[in-house]
Amino acid sequence: VTDLAAEPKDAPGEGRPGKRERLVASATKLLHEQGIEGTTLAEIAAAAEVPLGNVYYYFKTRDELVRAVIQSRAAAIDTLLDSLSARPTPQARLKALAHVWGEQSDLVAAHGCPIGSFCTDLNKDGSELAREAAALLERLISWSGEQFRQMGRRDAAKLAVALLAGVQGAAVLADSLNDPGILRQEVRRLERWIESLA
Amino acid sequence: VTDLAAEPKDAPGEGRPGKRERLVASATKLLHEQGIEGTTLAEIAAAAEVPLGNVYYYFKTRDELVRAVIQSRAAAIDTLLDSLSARPTPQARLKALAHVWGEQSDLVAAHGCPIGSFCTDLNKDGSELAREAAALLERLISWSGEQFRQMGRRDAAKLAVALLAGVQGAAVLADSLNDPGILRQEVRRLERWIESLA
Repeated sequence: VTDLAAEPKDAPGEGRPGKRERLVASATKLLHEQGIEGTTLAEIAAAAEVPLGNVYYYFKTRDELVRAVIQSRAAAIDTLLDSLSARPTPQARLKALAHVWGEQSDLVAAHGCPIGSFCTDLNKDGSELAREAAALLERLISWSGEQFRQMGRRDAAKLAVALLAGVQGAAVLADSLNDPGILRQEVRRLERWIESLA
Repeated sequence: VTDLAAEPKDAPGEGRPGKRERLVASATKLLHEQGIEGTTLAEIAAAAEVPLGNVYYYFKTRDELVRAVIQSRAAAIDTLLDSLSARPTPQARLKALAHVWGEQSDLVAAHGCPIGSFCTDLNKDGSELAREAAALLERLISWSGEQFRQMGRRDAAKLAVALLAGVQGAAVLADSLNDPGILRQEVRRLERWIESLA
C-alpha cells in the first residue's frame, strides 16, 4: 500500500532526482520529524545536498516550500486512494484505508501522523497554509464518505468523520505515549467497526 | 464543569495572583495558542505583567516553566475528575468527561485540544518533557478504564483508549478544518456509544 509519508519519486528514465524534488523530499521528511518551527531552510538544503544559496532559486519563501510539501502529500494521497479503488467492496476499501495507519504505526508513534500532525503544526504556527493542508484531511473524509454511501449508509458523512477521527486520535495517543501498539489496536477496532456497518 | 484549559486560581484571601502564578497562567495560555517553538519567554512575561528579568528568579530554564504548565494542567485534570465522580453511574461519568470537550469546542477548533496538541507539540519539539505531558493523557485513559471496569466491561482498557482517541481525533479535525461542529458531533456520537455499552 502506498506510503502516507511517500516522498516524490524519480521521473522514469532519470537518474538522481533534481534539486527541486530533493528539496521537497527533505522538507517533507524534516517537517514531519522536527515540526515547522523547529526546521530551518539550511537543514532542509543540507539533507537534500543542495547548496543553501540555490534554495531561493526554487522557493522564494519558506511558505512556497511548505506549499510544495502539501502538494506532494496531496499527490501521495491520490495515489493511495487510486490503489485502494481496486478493492472489490466499499467496506474493503475503507478497511484498507484504516490499515495504512496500522502499517505505519512505528513512524506515527515516533513523529505523529504525517498528515494530521502537519495540520496541527501549521495551525499552531498560525500559518495561512493551514487551510490548504486541511484539504488533505478533507479529501480523505470525502473519499470515505463516498464509500459509506456506497454501503447504503444515510449517515455516511458522519461515519467518515468518525473514521478519520479514530485514526487521528489513535495517532495522537501513539505519538504521545510513544506506543505504536495503541495505533494498531485502534485500527483493528475500526476495521471491525466498518465490518459491523456493512 | 471544570475547564480543560483552566488556569491557576488565586489562593483564598489573596488579591491578584503572585508573579509565579501569573507566569504559569500566561505560559499555559500562550503555549496552547501559539505553540512551544512559537512562544518566547518575553511574550509570556509581558502577558503576565512580570518584568522579563524577574522570570529567571522563578524559572531558571524554559523547561522549568513548561514543567510548571504540565503540573498546572495535571491539577486541573484532578479537579475535573473529582467533580465528575459525583455523578451516580460510571456511564454518566464517562459521558460527562466526553462532554467537556464538546463544551470547549470553540477553543479546541481555534487552537487544538489543550492537552493533546500540547503533547503533540512537545513531541515534535523533541522535548524530554513530552513523557511528563503524556502522563496527562495516561491519567484520563486510566480513569476512563476504571469507569468501564465498573460497567462490567472486560475490555475496559481498550474502550478507554478508544474514548480518548475519539475525542483527540475529533479535536485534530475540528482544529484543522476550523469547525467546532465536528467536535460536538463526535462527542454526541461518543456519548451514544458509551450508553450502548452500559
